[in-house]
Amino acid sequence: MTGAVQDTTVRGSEARPVSFARGAPSVDIVDVEGLQQAAQDAFTADPAGMTGYGTAVGYLPLRAWIAAKHGVPVEHVLVTNGSMQADAFLFDELVTPGTTVLAERPTYDRTLLGLRERGADVRLVTLEEDGIAVEEVAELLAQGVRPALLHVIPTFQNPAGYTLSLAKRERLVELARQHDFVVFEDDPYVDVRFSGEPLPRMLELDGGAASEHVVYACSFSKTICPGIRVGYLVGPPAIIDRVRVRATGTYIAPNMVAQGIVHAYLTGERFPAALERVKQALGERVGELDRALREHLPQASFRRPEGGYFLWVSLPAYEGHDVARIVAEAAARGVAIVPGTDFLLEGGENSFRLAYSAVQVGDVDSGVRRLAEAVAAARG
Amino acid sequence: MTGAVQDTTVRGSEARPVSFARGAPSVDIVDVEGLQQAAQDAFTADPAGMTGYGTAVGYLPLRAWIAAKHGVPVEHVLVTNGSMQADAFLFDELVTPGTTVLAERPTYDRTLLGLRERGADVRLVTLEEDGIAVEEVAELLAQGVRPALLHVIPTFQNPAGYTLSLAKRERLVELARQHDFVVFEDDPYVDVRFSGEPLPRMLELDGGAASEHVVYACSFSKTICPGIRVGYLVGPPAIIDRVRVRATGTYIAPNMVAQGIVHAYLTGERFPAALERVKQALGERVGELDRALREHLPQASFRRPEGGYFLWVSLPAYEGHDVARIVAEAAARGVAIVPGTDFLLEGGENSFRLAYSAVQVGDVDSGVRRLAEAVAAARG
Repeated sequence: MTGAVQDTTVRGSEARPVSFARGAPSVDIVDVEGLQQAAQDAFTADPAGMTGYGTAVGYLPLRAWIAAKHGVPVEHVLVTNGSMQADAFLFDELVTPGTTVLAERPTYDRTLLGLRERGADVRLVTLEEDGIAVEEVAELLAQGVRPALLHVIPTFQNPAGYTLSLAKRERLVELARQHDFVVFEDDPYVDVRFSGEPLPRMLELDGGAASEHVVYACSFSKTICPGIRVGYLVGPPAIIDRVRVRATGTYIAPNMVAQGIVHAYLTGERFPAALERVKQALGERVGELDRALREHLPQASFRRPEGGYFLWVSLPAYEGHDVARIVAEAAARGVAIVPGTDFLLEGGENSFRLAYSAVQVGDVDSGVRRLAEAVAAARG
Repeated sequence: MTGAVQDTTVRGSEARPVSFARGAPSVDIVDVEGLQQAAQDAFTADPAGMTGYGTAVGYLPLRAWIAAKHGVPVEHVLVTNGSMQADAFLFDELVTPGTTVLAERPTYDRTLLGLRERGADVRLVTLEEDGIAVEEVAELLAQGVRPALLHVIPTFQNPAGYTLSLAKRERLVELARQHDFVVFEDDPYVDVRFSGEPLPRMLELDGGAASEHVVYACSFSKTICPGIRVGYLVGPPAIIDRVRVRATGTYIAPNMVAQGIVHAYLTGERFPAALERVKQALGERVGELDRALREHLPQASFRRPEGGYFLWVSLPAYEGHDVARIVAEAAARGVAIVPGTDFLLEGGENSFRLAYSAVQVGDVDSGVRRLAEAVAAARG
């Protein structure tokens, strides 16, 4: 270690560990009191519904709330124990060994893992700052590639923080219709937008209740809290019903207590203000992260996101690059990051993901300064 | 319909539907107020643990509570979204197409379905009033059958209500050790015993923390409520860790909010009295069911259970037997039952399962009287 590094590790708050790795909210932006109240209200309003088995479609009042939000009949909706469980069910239905699946490069590591474990033939398509390279998708289709599924995280993508443009959304839906594949619109971050204007979902562009080529997934992990483990799918009733049968065979029903609490919270008075507080805090954190990166790591390139949890940093290529060394040097300085290699089948050696969702705004500068030192040490 | 039947369907409370089909508690024996209090306490005590992602082993304080209850280190325990999800994970690990699995005849329909969907070579072994016919198991083993897994519901079995004797428990553990298979001890009803003496678990007989041949599953659905969807596995750490990896890839973590509520409830003041109330109510219901069956359906044979939710009724064999006709005639009289055929790969035409968990004691006599009429009509 250099002298400068020793300095940072002994100076009070400077030494505090900072995790840019955790894609989760800090507890100060979770409305714990609101959840307590929602739990009271939910048990009082519907003791039988909360405590009984229920069915695999989910807690019926919550299912109806979600259907109304998306303007579809309830038969299009299935509520699950977190949206990753929804992904798993959908993959189990649509992906068998050899099934071709298109996904973004980079993308969420657990999605890649889930697809590879099922033996999918995963083809990764370049992710640009305005979303997946749709003409690269069109080119693959023109070459005869026949995907069953195209997975995208359209809004504030994990790991990049990028958002798919309207034009590209329209083009993807058009391609899905022409070539008869399903767009899996994996959209857990959409409701934590802190700047810019919302875009229509591909579910809507494909006709909402009439959609045949989009399965939409979302979650309350980012708007309420992750520990409540409530996510959902919206899609064509035939697909949703296949998932329902699979879910019944797996767990009879998802968590009625948790879904009842979510329903009471969403329909209660506190939700709008609490969501605003989440967005405001995330916006502050990303603003400070943007500033600190420009100051301490000026060679980094990144796009400041308009919402979500993540920002993707690319460094100039250099001889013998190895992001694992940066990760290790950062860890030695109490700073956790996730290497770009985790989100790709190959490459990513000059990149890493920074999650700002769990970092207090006052810790950002110190974390980025130590990260810059780690980059210098790894390349020194 | 006969005149007598029409009488019963027009006379006030006589006409009320009675479900002997639902293996779930009526809401009056769920301590809703206690759950409300537990939710308050849990969010107050551990807001970060309740609302954060957690990990696939489950909510750590609950995992520790379960480990202490069973006298094993925490590495032996994994808490899931209901015990059926635990079954599914275990089957995914241990059962591939062609894997030989022994199970009881009759047994829980969803267990049979889960095994068959995974392509298991399922061999059903006679269930006797003191549990699975262990010498039939020994005979199969002697013939060269090599099961990976033997599934039993040892206590107040579903659908029969029978309990595996101590001698047979000891013999099964001995056979598992000799022939190196895993006993899956699926025990969700064990803690709702309303008469008789508890028996040691096979997990304990195999050495508890030293056990290598038993994986134990249990649930809080019967002691707290089903909608909370919390179950667990206890077993050799190597198996538990494989399940942990699979669970992580499926849903990151189970429901922290629900598991936090369960933990607060179990460690709070109300649980012991609430559990006594559940047992007392179930005991009353089974007493009345016993009496009513003897009065209205004297040709039925059954064993009065000492706990749990279920009682298995066998009728004398007769020409052209068809339990589906009894089910239909009962349904026409507002009484729901589950046919014996649902719990067997073949046979069961003279049997049905009666669940008394959801039937108020005052409705039992009317339900059984109409059921007796349905039997007479189906055989008439």
